[in-house]
Amino acid sequence: MKTYLDCIPCFFRQALAAARMSSADEMIHRRVLNSVALMIPDLALDATPPEIAQQVYRINYEITGNNDPYLEAKRCANKSAMSLYTRMKDMVDDSNETLETACKLAIAGNAIDLGAQAGYGSMYSIIEDSLGYQPDQEHYRKFKECVGQASLILYLADNAGEIVFDRILIEQLLQIKKLKIVFVVREKPIINDATLDDALQVGLNKVATIISNGSDAPATILSQCSSDMLSYFRAADLIISKGQGNYESLSDRPGNIFFLFKVKCPVVARDSGYDLDSPVLISSTALKNFKNENTFFDRLQAGGIT
Amino acid sequence: MKTYLDCIPCFFRQALAAARMSSADEMIHRRVLNSVALMIPDLALDATPPEIAQQVYRINYEITGNNDPYLEAKRCANKSAMSLYTRMKDMVDDSNETLETACKLAIAGNAIDLGAQAGYGSMYSIIEDSLGYQPDQEHYRKFKECVGQASLILYLADNAGEIVFDRILIEQLLQIKKLKIVFVVREKPIINDATLDDALQVGLNKVATIISNGSDAPATILSQCSSDMLSYFRAADLIISKGQGNYESLSDRPGNIFFLFKVKCPVVARDSGYDLDSPVLISSTALKNFKNENTFFDRLQAGGIT
Repeated sequence: MKTYLDCIPCFFRQALAAARMSSADEMIHRRVLNSVALMIPDLALDATPPEIAQQVYRINYEITGNNDPYLEAKRCANKSAMSLYTRMKDMVDDSNETLETACKLAIAGNAIDLGAQAGYGSMYSIIEDSLGYQPDQEHYRKFKECVGQASLILYLADNAGEIVFDRILIEQLLQIKKLKIVFVVREKPIINDATLDDALQVGLNKVATIISNGSDAPATILSQCSSDMLSYFRAADLIISKGQGNYESLSDRPGNIFFLFKVKCPVVARDSGYDLDSPVLISSTALKNFKNENTFFDRLQAGGIT
Repeated sequence: MKTYLDCIPCFFRQALAAARMSSADEMIHRRVLNSVALMIPDLALDATPPEIAQQVYRINYEITGNNDPYLEAKRCANKSAMSLYTRMKDMVDDSNETLETACKLAIAGNAIDLGAQAGYGSMYSIIEDSLGYQPDQEHYRKFKECVGQASLILYLADNAGEIVFDRILIEQLLQIKKLKIVFVVREKPIINDATLDDALQVGLNKVATIISNGSDAPATILSQCSSDMLSYFRAADLIISKGQGNYESLSDRPGNIFFLFKVKCPVVARDSGYDLDSPVLISSTALKNFKNENTFFDRLQAGGIT
């Protein structure tokens, strides 16, 4: 997905939020915004939004000196989600369609995003929200079919806290059949995206092989990924891509990818064809068909955006 | 009210909306955003937000060549609100406290704002919303008392469409007592703010003396106002200030001012102490007391903003 002009105000909003998380000094916040402003005229809009966000967060790091402003937020989210792990397991076990319930939870967990939005509700309400989700049944059936045929699944993680919801889904996948699951986190801290530390905090090493993607982008930018990660990307029978950042960076890429996320910004809503706040489970193939059938202008109109 | 760093993302959002209203060419939209970006490092944050917004909209005019992109939107809003004029009159006449009902309507009409937000609901729903408003009774009593003692009222208008709601309030004021009411509009088009043309379209000349303030700011910036306007400002017994822009430019000024508006942005929410979406009727004196009692830091905390 390319960067739209609508992303520019959002880069400033994110830069200010990150600067405030990094420092209490308003003069420093101002310097961060000024530096972001200076990069705007040279912005390559054919880059994906997370590629530009990566530059924005690097500016924040350079100016504030804080390379992990969301560290505490991530720890809290992991801990808080882990405290509801048993509840989520029970929800899955008590449901008729256990894999679907686990998918709903994994999608709901994507609400734990401090880039696209300033905050999120309680962990409890996020879990409750999943009950109201109804993934497109055609896409879900296709997903289940792909799982049935897969032996190696690459699972691209998004945020800390959310990875507990991912663990629930992974455990469900492993109940269906013998699978090798490779769980991919960011190489370095960026926003509240999960790193190796986070994955270990929630015990993902017990259910999957954890690797980092080699990049500090809040996304999966293949040109920045390690050769190890790229080998898995090519070899995987099925790729589960969590979150908006991974969607934005992979929506135009080939591969048997299923995107699971919650729509949290109007630009992704227009690009994907889903309403704001919608839960999404869609394959890259179905997405390509949708995009071929609907021009961006159609989607813009449908979104009622002026 | 000074400009906060939170206003910067909003200036970009407004610039993009205005550029899109002015031109269909995305390259032009990009040029507008680039020019706004270049002004950021030199931004004087001790200026009020509408003073900076004025520069942003001037940039849009210079680049797109369109000096009144919201012309059609303003005409539609005036027409649509006038079609509900009789309904609003009936609502006032049928109520127990007619002045209060007219105030509620005038505040509700401030929802018709295309600067602080991308759009607004139907005119009908805006009128319905007013039914749920409950102005602070102490402030309302003070307002009514001031009206009783006044002979010259200066009424600072905000947006097209909204001025029909203002007409309802003015007609109610005139039923209470003999009054001279001077209705102040913007000198030149800016966003969807009302100008002389708009005031004439909705027949405000039948109930008030209409003057322009001499400025194209979306606010009342006294240093930019005409001597005529300033004479009335000094001579008025009571000033009714509509909307966020007038609040932002006058909240620290002396004078017997009553601010009537709907809170449409988190920065004004924090500054004024009212929640987002709240209807507000408050005197400048009560506002000063509130600000003296609560530092901005307290209000920031109260707003739960990080």
